[in-house]
Amino acid sequence: MKKELKKKKKVILTGDRPTGPLHLGHYIGSLQNRVNLQNDYDQYLIIADMQALTDNADNPEKVSKNVFEVALDYLAVGIDPKKTTIFIQSLVPEISELTMYYLNLVSVGRLERNPTVKDEIKQKGFGKIVPAGFLMYPVSQAADITVFGADLVPVGEDQLPVLEQTNEIVRRFNNTYKTKAIKEVKALVSDFPRLPGTDGKAKMGKSLGNAIYLSDSEKEVEKKIMGMYTDPNHLRVEDPGKVEGNPVFSYLDAFGKDKKIIKELKDHYKKGGLGDVKVKRYLNEVLQEFLGPIRKEREKLAKDRGYIDKVLIKGTERAKQKAQEVLRDVRKAMKINYFD
Amino acid sequence: MKKELKKKKKVILTGDRPTGPLHLGHYIGSLQNRVNLQNDYDQYLIIADMQALTDNADNPEKVSKNVFEVALDYLAVGIDPKKTTIFIQSLVPEISELTMYYLNLVSVGRLERNPTVKDEIKQKGFGKIVPAGFLMYPVSQAADITVFGADLVPVGEDQLPVLEQTNEIVRRFNNTYKTKAIKEVKALVSDFPRLPGTDGKAKMGKSLGNAIYLSDSEKEVEKKIMGMYTDPNHLRVEDPGKVEGNPVFSYLDAFGKDKKIIKELKDHYKKGGLGDVKVKRYLNEVLQEFLGPIRKEREKLAKDRGYIDKVLIKGTERAKQKAQEVLRDVRKAMKINYFD
Repeated sequence: MKKELKKKKKVILTGDRPTGPLHLGHYIGSLQNRVNLQNDYDQYLIIADMQALTDNADNPEKVSKNVFEVALDYLAVGIDPKKTTIFIQSLVPEISELTMYYLNLVSVGRLERNPTVKDEIKQKGFGKIVPAGFLMYPVSQAADITVFGADLVPVGEDQLPVLEQTNEIVRRFNNTYKTKAIKEVKALVSDFPRLPGTDGKAKMGKSLGNAIYLSDSEKEVEKKIMGMYTDPNHLRVEDPGKVEGNPVFSYLDAFGKDKKIIKELKDHYKKGGLGDVKVKRYLNEVLQEFLGPIRKEREKLAKDRGYIDKVLIKGTERAKQKAQEVLRDVRKAMKINYFD
Repeated sequence: MKKELKKKKKVILTGDRPTGPLHLGHYIGSLQNRVNLQNDYDQYLIIADMQALTDNADNPEKVSKNVFEVALDYLAVGIDPKKTTIFIQSLVPEISELTMYYLNLVSVGRLERNPTVKDEIKQKGFGKIVPAGFLMYPVSQAADITVFGADLVPVGEDQLPVLEQTNEIVRRFNNTYKTKAIKEVKALVSDFPRLPGTDGKAKMGKSLGNAIYLSDSEKEVEKKIMGMYTDPNHLRVEDPGKVEGNPVFSYLDAFGKDKKIIKELKDHYKKGGLGDVKVKRYLNEVLQEFLGPIRKEREKLAKDRGYIDKVLIKGTERAKQKAQEVLRDVRKAMKINYFD
């Protein structure tokens, strides 16, 4: 009975490219959501090392090192390996196999027109030398998603083209092979505000040097907060300051629990007479309180590599099992189930 | 001791796309060579179903049906599963995994400049809609070859660009990951003459309708021979005829054992006074004698599907084992050997 109920849970696929440890932006944008979703969904959490390699082929240490950092982050914030299947992409070769089948159903031209990929190619400065693996990563992502029969993928608005590409492939596959072996996926569009960087830039990013990491020490956090960008026109304490676009207040909104105090601080700041340092000190209190338990848990887990390995091995086995089920249907639909 | 000697054998990778049963052209161009090579080499024989799908994605039945036809052909001509590892490509997902790693080391532009692929894209009439899987099949081939640590690949002159691409990837991989995990491969260029089609075209081809199959019945063979193209200017028996470019004589050269009779026939034909029908009747004798035992063996094997399955399953297991060894080295070199 219990098993049956469990079976009915919708499947969610979500994850990260292990190119750096996770930061507060990840927490706000996805991690806290995942901690909630795992109670109601059958959640697969992919550590996408193969995808990370598509633009880090010459620096695989960066990728492999961060597989464990990311796993630590997941566990430290409350992802429960009993509820969420945490796994390593490259250890599920069924994903690669499915990618190969999908690649026959997508034209090179279609991949070259993918708006997200086009932008990223520009950003990453590949120039004319685009690695083939990078161009086709949306196909690989379609395999990541569909190989677990995912119903939902939590995404930001900017990632919708990825899901469009996935569903295009799903329809093409099911039409070509007259099957329903592969499932279309729905976007679970998140409306979480994006956390700005400590430099006030719109996005907190691993590569932008403007991130506060879940693994930062107390001192690092304090230092980063005290050096944060605020309102550049708020030169003297008595000047009125701007709260909008001031990341210190964005962070308070995101992490502060005492909404009354935050409101008072904002009013005071806007009126003038409240110095940046004072607000930052308060933010430091708030963030240390938030990050303290995560850091403590993370340090404890980091000492127990055996446990982390076990979580990843078990999760990967579970993911493989599910992937094999779907692959069986895929091969049957393609009539290449030779020995059935 | 014996095992040690066996280990020292060089590895050969060869195989076919299962898009049709094999014909006399395959026999002359590769099969007879493989039957010899298996005694001196550790020979891997790939039934490349995934590659066949790159341009037959909408007709997988054609591919899956011919996996067994091709296996029957192999066994019927004397490929010995104790000496040669016959396996099905799609059942070795390590090949797909390795393909994914290689794709990050090859640019889209390089793939688009591959002369063989360029020609094939034109021939196949893909137009602008080239399946991504087709464009990158040379990368997948590089994985086929290197995942078994092949030393040699028997190829015709026209396939040399494929091996160039493979070795380019090998060097790139070994340089990038400072390793020798992957081996460069050498071409074993065959100097077997190419067998023309029954229509006199330079190449006997599955899709050209000018092939005599190893599985053709006695009657089919006779009919195809009697309808063969000869010298179009040899209109009357008494006319002198041309032997060069006359496929009837090419087949006699390839399959006839009595070189003296063949020489006499050629001289007579050139001088005039020897009719096509007579030469064709002799060729029919020769080919029936050659094909008879193969056909008989093939029919016997075809009735024992269990045996064919066993050969393919065992071969695939052996291939997987070897592939896993190489993949272990690959992952170690890339430092993504997480739990070692």
